[in-house]
Amino acid sequence: MKSKFRHVALIGKYQTPVAGALAATSRAVLEDIAGFLSREGCEVALEANTAANTGLTAYEALDVEAIGAQCDLGLVVGGDGTMLGIGRQLAHRGVPLIGINQGRLGFVTDIPIENYRDALAPMLRGEYEEDQRSLMHARVMREGGCVFDALAMNDVVVNRGGTSGMVELRVEVDGRFVSNQRADGLIIATPTGSTAYALSAGGPLLHPSVPGWVLAPIAPHTLSNRPIVLPDATEVAIEIAGGRDVSANFDMQSLASLLRGDRITVRRSQHHVRFLHPRGWSYFDTLRKKLHWNEGGC
Amino acid sequence: MKSKFRHVALIGKYQTPVAGALAATSRAVLEDIAGFLSREGCEVALEANTAANTGLTAYEALDVEAIGAQCDLGLVVGGDGTMLGIGRQLAHRGVPLIGINQGRLGFVTDIPIENYRDALAPMLRGEYEEDQRSLMHARVMREGGCVFDALAMNDVVVNRGGTSGMVELRVEVDGRFVSNQRADGLIIATPTGSTAYALSAGGPLLHPSVPGWVLAPIAPHTLSNRPIVLPDATEVAIEIAGGRDVSANFDMQSLASLLRGDRITVRRSQHHVRFLHPRGWSYFDTLRKKLHWNEGGC
Amino acid sequence: MKSKFRHVALIGKYQTPVAGALAATSRAVLEDIAGFLSREGCEVALEANTAANTGLTAYEALDVEAIGAQCDLGLVVGGDGTMLGIGRQLAHRGVPLIGINQGRLGFVTDIPIENYRDALAPMLRGEYEEDQRSLMHARVMREGGCVFDALAMNDVVVNRGGTSGMVELRVEVDGRFVSNQRADGLIIATPTGSTAYALSAGGPLLHPSVPGWVLAPIAPHTLSNRPIVLPDATEVAIEIAGGRDVSANFDMQSLASLLRGDRITVRRSQHHVRFLHPRGWSYFDTLRKKLHWNEGGC
Amino acid sequence: MKSKFRHVALIGKYQTPVAGALAATSRAVLEDIAGFLSREGCEVALEANTAANTGLTAYEALDVEAIGAQCDLGLVVGGDGTMLGIGRQLAHRGVPLIGINQGRLGFVTDIPIENYRDALAPMLRGEYEEDQRSLMHARVMREGGCVFDALAMNDVVVNRGGTSGMVELRVEVDGRFVSNQRADGLIIATPTGSTAYALSAGGPLLHPSVPGWVLAPIAPHTLSNRPIVLPDATEVAIEIAGGRDVSANFDMQSLASLLRGDRITVRRSQHHVRFLHPRGWSYFDTLRKKLHWNEGGC
Repeated sequence: MKSKFRHVALIGKYQTPVAGALAATSRAVLEDIAGFLSREGCEVALEANTAANTGLTAYEALDVEAIGAQCDLGLVVGGDGTMLGIGRQLAHRGVPLIGINQGRLGFVTDIPIENYRDALAPMLRGEYEEDQRSLMHARVMREGGCVFDALAMNDVVVNRGGTSGMVELRVEVDGRFVSNQRADGLIIATPTGSTAYALSAGGPLLHPSVPGWVLAPIAPHTLSNRPIVLPDATEVAIEIAGGRDVSANFDMQSLASLLRGDRITVRRSQHHVRFLHPRGWSYFDTLRKKLHWNEGGC
Repeated sequence: MKSKFRHVALIGKYQTPVAGALAATSRAVLEDIAGFLSREGCEVALEANTAANTGLTAYEALDVEAIGAQCDLGLVVGGDGTMLGIGRQLAHRGVPLIGINQGRLGFVTDIPIENYRDALAPMLRGEYEEDQRSLMHARVMREGGCVFDALAMNDVVVNRGGTSGMVELRVEVDGRFVSNQRADGLIIATPTGSTAYALSAGGPLLHPSVPGWVLAPIAPHTLSNRPIVLPDATEVAIEIAGGRDVSANFDMQSLASLLRGDRITVRRSQHHVRFLHPRGWSYFDTLRKKLHWNEGGC
Repeated sequence: MKSKFRHVALIGKYQTPVAGALAATSRAVLEDIAGFLSREGCEVALEANTAANTGLTAYEALDVEAIGAQCDLGLVVGGDGTMLGIGRQLAHRGVPLIGINQGRLGFVTDIPIENYRDALAPMLRGEYEEDQRSLMHARVMREGGCVFDALAMNDVVVNRGGTSGMVELRVEVDGRFVSNQRADGLIIATPTGSTAYALSAGGPLLHPSVPGWVLAPIAPHTLSNRPIVLPDATEVAIEIAGGRDVSANFDMQSLASLLRGDRITVRRSQHHVRFLHPRGWSYFDTLRKKLHWNEGGC
Repeated sequence: MKSKFRHVALIGKYQTPVAGALAATSRAVLEDIAGFLSREGCEVALEANTAANTGLTAYEALDVEAIGAQCDLGLVVGGDGTMLGIGRQLAHRGVPLIGINQGRLGFVTDIPIENYRDALAPMLRGEYEEDQRSLMHARVMREGGCVFDALAMNDVVVNRGGTSGMVELRVEVDGRFVSNQRADGLIIATPTGSTAYALSAGGPLLHPSVPGWVLAPIAPHTLSNRPIVLPDATEVAIEIAGGRDVSANFDMQSLASLLRGDRITVRRSQHHVRFLHPRGWSYFDTLRKKLHWNEGGC
């Protein structure tokens, strides 16, 4: 049987390597997967940076925008970071993504490189679970204008500088005053981001199909300032009410030197990211593995 | 202008007084409110226990079932406990409720007795905010049959006995295995219940319009067993996998001596409870007041 | 070189097996260890229950009291529970203990059965680290008299019954009022107990050489009721101020049906328990292993 | 009866005002207190900056070093920040301090300005409670040399920059490896500091007479990286093992741009700070007030 997906883009881990991170996806691995996809009847394209980094020229090279326009599946070979980065860029195109992981399995890159063929073959035939993830659209407003604009799959974080004391943040939801938070900072996380930074700050896990955001303060001065889950249909606004060197972070992008009065607004994007998983996949299985719930220990 | 609500039931705090709780609603207060309602053009009924406890005979006495059948508004004079209890009983009838509080304001009883007239008058004319709360329908299944059945507005709690060690609970969501929890117990809370016991156990606040439940373990043995928010469209099942003297609690009702293999299942009830608040009411204002977010302290 | 310890008692895991717990220590294992000790020049005794359960008659059988009077080392073959139980009984005699674990290593039973000879041989010659643990002496006072008296190596816990609401506990330290706690219960833990129940309830880890207790509330109603570390030279008193079916637990022993006005007092015992570990042992190595700090995960 | 303290220094709140902080101590208030002290038989000196800021010339002006050499009591009129700052500077001289607060009472400035005479009069006669606080001596070591040196009464904090990801910190205690922490940062707090930043980060309260430090991670990646209490007789070392823009903060002083391999070491100072409180003072009374334990709320 032929693949349900006609035109498949292969995307490697090509970002500037961070200290301690796994090396970039190797040429050999990509060639192997590309060959497999061809034999399954797919037309294979390579994401342009991936092609440049590996020197693979046997396949058409497309930038992410072109992948969005032309491909009907993206196959990411990397970790969660790569997967979320590409997901953010392709969301408005609705191209679904599959994640193959070369190291320790991630929350969303859940196919181990070792037996990727066994996992991929049925998925290409249409046997998969679709897992839609919401996306935040954030803006930084200053003196009435928008000075920054970004999508975030994990979280929007507003926090203090490294040598500053607490920030003071005024939170509003749909124009209604929620609280003045004095803290190291404040995290607004999607369900996807609820297993990342927000979890470290004491936030709850949010199942991906809950239409909500977590608002989790980081080291709040007032002990009853607990994480709160808000409907994602609302607009959350955070106004800088005090503090020095305040910055905002949108997934991996940062905007430093925010000023008093700056407002960060967060809305749900109209788009979703589509992740595909092998038939029988369960979000809870991933949670158990990643959070070591089965190890009988403390 | 006449009241939008024609037939209004007055419901006092009539439960057996718990040590330290406020006394039952007094006759004088109820007479005063009943008079006010009459003057506003409402036909006034008294909840039967309230009538019996206060000796008020000037108004028709109706039991809760009759209130549900005949009245188009319930006016509760008491605390959150009274309000939630009546809400649970009237949910299937869709009768909206207003809460007047004689002591410290509650999360849902937010009209102070002192100036109830100013707050109620516009509400009777139709100027109010409606706040719908979801409700859980819980069952205890044993050997294939249902041995207990209850509605809960706050939470369903499964926990150890007072002199027993941890319970072991197997959690499933829509038939999928989530985790084996070893803990003092497990709380499944509605957004309404998220400000009650689940908050004490480390759970997040859930805005009432988030269609989710919080699953919060109580003193979990595995430190990464963090609270999780699940969509309320799922069926959550908790199976007793170990422990002695395990019991289940549904709001205020308890079922002791659960057996290994017993399953507690929780689904969203098809009904909602309807609370009415004064125009301009904001859930966040209540949160701030109840959680002392404004006191500048720790 | 001869053993520094002349008379060594072997103590197996002989308690009534709890569901899910490891089986009792086997006869073969004990015979093997006893033979090894004899060859190292020790006179070997068997704890009386251990002798009875295994049917081993080749060695003198001594009850715990006699072990305390006659032996200069106790060798526990079991888990942390066995070790702490024997430690509590031998504390007033000052007999040091070594723990051999047949399953997953414990916090205090840190010699794996597989290579016990390599670990024990140098320890018998005097090459070990001594690790002293404090002990609590708890009493339950009612109407001026002491109705219960117990030692605890882990913790003293006062908590609600399984189907009851919160308890209300009045806490005093050296006669000074500390707080009224409304909660599921309250844990007073030694440093040894700080890695057990108190940790699950949100308490900090306490290094064994910190002369303090942790006071950790379980699911406290007031969110700022945080765990507090007190000097262990103080007397902590907990008075039952409210709640039904309140019970107190001292390590494994329980006292149910406490009454309003009952006071549980906790003082440091004048004795310590002495645990011996292989040379180079570090408390922090144990923490890392038991708390999975090295697994790179969440 | 004459004052037990012959030479008393008056110290106002003279730091550069921070936005939102209370104004500097006024001249009128200081004159009033100075007059009172004179009448009680004390020789009064003014801390030099306080004298300069208020223009008060009727009393001898002494810098902090001279106060340490000549005075036998310091009377601080300000908040906890002023009190701790002066305490840190005077610790090596052993001069005791009393704190008068003009605004909301602090943890250590517990005499309200309104009735300071009633509180002070008996204290000057020797009727007081002495409350000794430990002090940390911290150093930053780089390539074998000490590049920074500071005392801290509250805490030493090592944290990430405002737009950086997690830091990685290697923790050692007395040369023994404790853990590699990946987190926003790490706080080492004294008992005094346990009610400040460490509390916000999830640390326990430490009674001032517990000879320990709290080590509290800020938003740790590994969920089982819980706060730990260490004996204060140990040397704690934190080595920068990863992260960008890492900085260290010692109470209010910051050192930015730490390098990989830099080590921050913390030892107990040989000195203590001596705070005097009115007879009958209890640390727990202060806790209850500051943490709002009595307000019946959440």
